[in-house]
Amino acid sequence: MKIDIFNHFFPRSFFEKYIRVGERGRDMGKRVQHIPTIADLDARLRALDEFGDYVQVLSMPMPPLEVLGGPDRTPALAAEANDGLAELVETQDRFIAFAAALPMNNPDAAVRELVRALDELGAKGVQLHSNAAGRPLDAPEFQPIFDEIAKRDAVIWLHPSRDATFADYQTEERSLYEIWWTFGWPYETSVAMARLVFSGLFDRLPGI
Amino acid sequence: MKIDIFNHFFPRSFFEKYIRVGERGRDMGKRVQHIPTIADLDARLRALDEFGDYVQVLSMPMPPLEVLGGPDRTPALAAEANDGLAELVETQDRFIAFAAALPMNNPDAAVRELVRALDELGAKGVQLHSNAAGRPLDAPEFQPIFDEIAKRDAVIWLHPSRDATFADYQTEERSLYEIWWTFGWPYETSVAMARLVFSGLFDRLPGI
Repeated sequence: MKIDIFNHFFPRSFFEKYIRVGERGRDMGKRVQHIPTIADLDARLRALDEFGDYVQVLSMPMPPLEVLGGPDRTPALAAEANDGLAELVETQDRFIAFAAALPMNNPDAAVRELVRALDELGAKGVQLHSNAAGRPLDAPEFQPIFDEIAKRDAVIWLHPSRDATFADYQTEERSLYEIWWTFGWPYETSVAMARLVFSGLFDRLPGI
Repeated sequence: MKIDIFNHFFPRSFFEKYIRVGERGRDMGKRVQHIPTIADLDARLRALDEFGDYVQVLSMPMPPLEVLGGPDRTPALAAEANDGLAELVETQDRFIAFAAALPMNNPDAAVRELVRALDELGAKGVQLHSNAAGRPLDAPEFQPIFDEIAKRDAVIWLHPSRDATFADYQTEERSLYEIWWTFGWPYETSVAMARLVFSGLFDRLPGI
């Protein structure tokens, strides 16, 4: 059996309520809505049939939740997203696990949702983006989230996040030629990992 | 014989007049002054003696000239730098060629200095930095420089350039943990190349 551990899919209700009606963010967040297999379960399952003995671990597609709403709203969005992912795992043999989404612009609520997703919904870990509404993951407000992840031996899926507003040059406003993701995403992932390492996360929490 | 094509060295007079007295720019531009072999010819030649049948192609160390002065001043700085590099090549067997420095914040003067360095000083090409005072190399004002380089079949040495003001995150002012160069320099070099490709430089000047 092949286990594919990084696959994005919108629970149908989340897609209908938020994404289809226009809350898509920019750039990649806007583009994914047009991929048929990103929210259409039949289309996804048909696509998977080509690959035989193969299963997927699910996580939410772009955009990160904090692009869709402020800190008062993202806790509810996270709950809906995680409930939907959990239901997909429960009802579909092709989906064997999921990584929870967290409301990273509301760190207290993020810890609560993390605990709920792991304990009540059976999430195997969380998907974090390489920046949380522009903030680095080594910012102090996120440390309780990492503490909780380490305590529970949960897994982190680290997803690149930047959009075209990350200009290629300091004298420009926007990135050109898709550089923001083709080169920018691997770069930003490296930067996020370097920041976690050099800020001492792995010294403080060696098991993470 | 080994030919090492990318080696930085300050002509002594340039180093004494500008770098040692404090015109060093920031970050890497400030750091290189403390490397003994960067401007001390005896120290450099002694170091090279360890490597047997080995020669170097010279170019200027960081910072780029436009960090040292405005467009009224950099043409003279470039002339001094290139005269110094040409003299080193003429007088030292270990140095077989050099890449000229250009005053990129003064594109008209840059074309004139390019022609002078190639025709009168015997430069084999030019060192360009991945950004020119923040501007991308595919900006229209630099196109006459590329035209001239292509016309003369000269070579471009492309050097990464960013300093710590290229923050790791949009919510920060400065890059941490040396990320600006460890990851930032390879990233910026890739971005500069991608911009040159997708802006059509190699279609317009296929021989470059």
